[in-house]
Amino acid sequence: MVDNLAVAVVSGGVDSTVMAYLLKERGYELVVMTVDYGQRHRKEIGYAARTAERLGAEHVVVEVGLGGVLRGSALTDMSVPVPHGEYEGANMGLTVVPSRNAIMVACAYGLAVSRGAGLVGIGVHGGDHEIYPDCRPAFVAAIERACRLGTGSEVGVWAPFLGVDKSYVVAVGADRLGIDLCGGTWSCYEGGEVHCGRCGTCVERREAFRVAGVDDSTEYADLSGIENGRGQ
Amino acid sequence: MVDNLAVAVVSGGVDSTVMAYLLKERGYELVVMTVDYGQRHRKEIGYAARTAERLGAEHVVVEVGLGGVLRGSALTDMSVPVPHGEYEGANMGLTVVPSRNAIMVACAYGLAVSRGAGLVGIGVHGGDHEIYPDCRPAFVAAIERACRLGTGSEVGVWAPFLGVDKSYVVAVGADRLGIDLCGGTWSCYEGGEVHCGRCGTCVERREAFRVAGVDDSTEYADLSGIENGRGQ
Repeated sequence: MVDNLAVAVVSGGVDSTVMAYLLKERGYELVVMTVDYGQRHRKEIGYAARTAERLGAEHVVVEVGLGGVLRGSALTDMSVPVPHGEYEGANMGLTVVPSRNAIMVACAYGLAVSRGAGLVGIGVHGGDHEIYPDCRPAFVAAIERACRLGTGSEVGVWAPFLGVDKSYVVAVGADRLGIDLCGGTWSCYEGGEVHCGRCGTCVERREAFRVAGVDDSTEYADLSGIENGRGQ
Repeated sequence: MVDNLAVAVVSGGVDSTVMAYLLKERGYELVVMTVDYGQRHRKEIGYAARTAERLGAEHVVVEVGLGGVLRGSALTDMSVPVPHGEYEGANMGLTVVPSRNAIMVACAYGLAVSRGAGLVGIGVHGGDHEIYPDCRPAFVAAIERACRLGTGSEVGVWAPFLGVDKSYVVAVGADRLGIDLCGGTWSCYEGGEVHCGRCGTCVERREAFRVAGVDDSTEYADLSGIENGRGQ
């Protein structure tokens, strides 16, 4: 095992990007892995590729053909519109892709074992707990255990943001690590030319920058509504 | 949840095929799922498709692009030759695809949740325990737990052959369920025109039929060596 080699699961969004920079800061050499699961906002993969390049890391894209398989999620089923509004609202359940993080971690774990890496890093954070069960601590512990048993290896799963929310991630990334989060990450589920500003993950992004006190130069198509968002 | 709907993970080999027929016998309607992970013996997928057809089930193929990702496994890395000889021999470690069953179960679980199925069935059996850690009871229990926690659902993972070996599976499939295992399943890792007869899984297949006392009409390119195989 190469102790200072880690597989960073990077979607191209804020959380996983900051996580990857944190690993690098701690002295790890990285393999950046992105899962292309047929997501509507595939645009994020290009952001993950540029993050890998900046970190001097190999970028591995694993295609998982879930697009035509999982019905009823707005992220993979093009017949379901992306819900707008507050991130924690009931309609955000439409953005759940069942088993997504289990699939991602299992793929990353296999890659880590194959390359002799000692760690798999993921960017899930505490603010996702309510609607995404696969972002909760109990899940992360359970999938790590399953992958260890399934491979007979000791690769760890590192999720440094499990106990904090997105505004903390933004503060660490922008203030301490000096990452260009606005230009270097993509959040919007719609995957349009610029961030829509209205979908759940756009509202969450805007709010996180606001709470963190970090200037948000992200270009949003629609800047209304944040006053009624969470955190007010 | 549709209580009598199950997702059967079928590779096209003997074990998963018999497992799917068992589910059908127990009254389940099936969705048959096969993972195309770039395996050398992709030929097995056609056998899975025909099993699905015979069972009146939809066949979902999930492509997982691990082929270029996992180095060092003879099943996905074409630069590594398929080892020949006894199934439990040390060189069979080359046929391990790290995390394969975790990936498969996670995908099947997501599909089950998406379709409202109550069960995911897998064909792992006791004879695989020694070289494949992801065929052991502790792994199956752990991945079921992780997937439940990760989706907040109660879908079960059913592995009826965990405590028996392949000869039992052959006996159940051929004698009790009357499945044409020789013509209806594919085992050989080489993926050639006919079963090679010499690779680990061919040797295991031949031995299982012999021990079960079931006539093996599978066409093998090379029938030597079984006398020196395991079970003697």
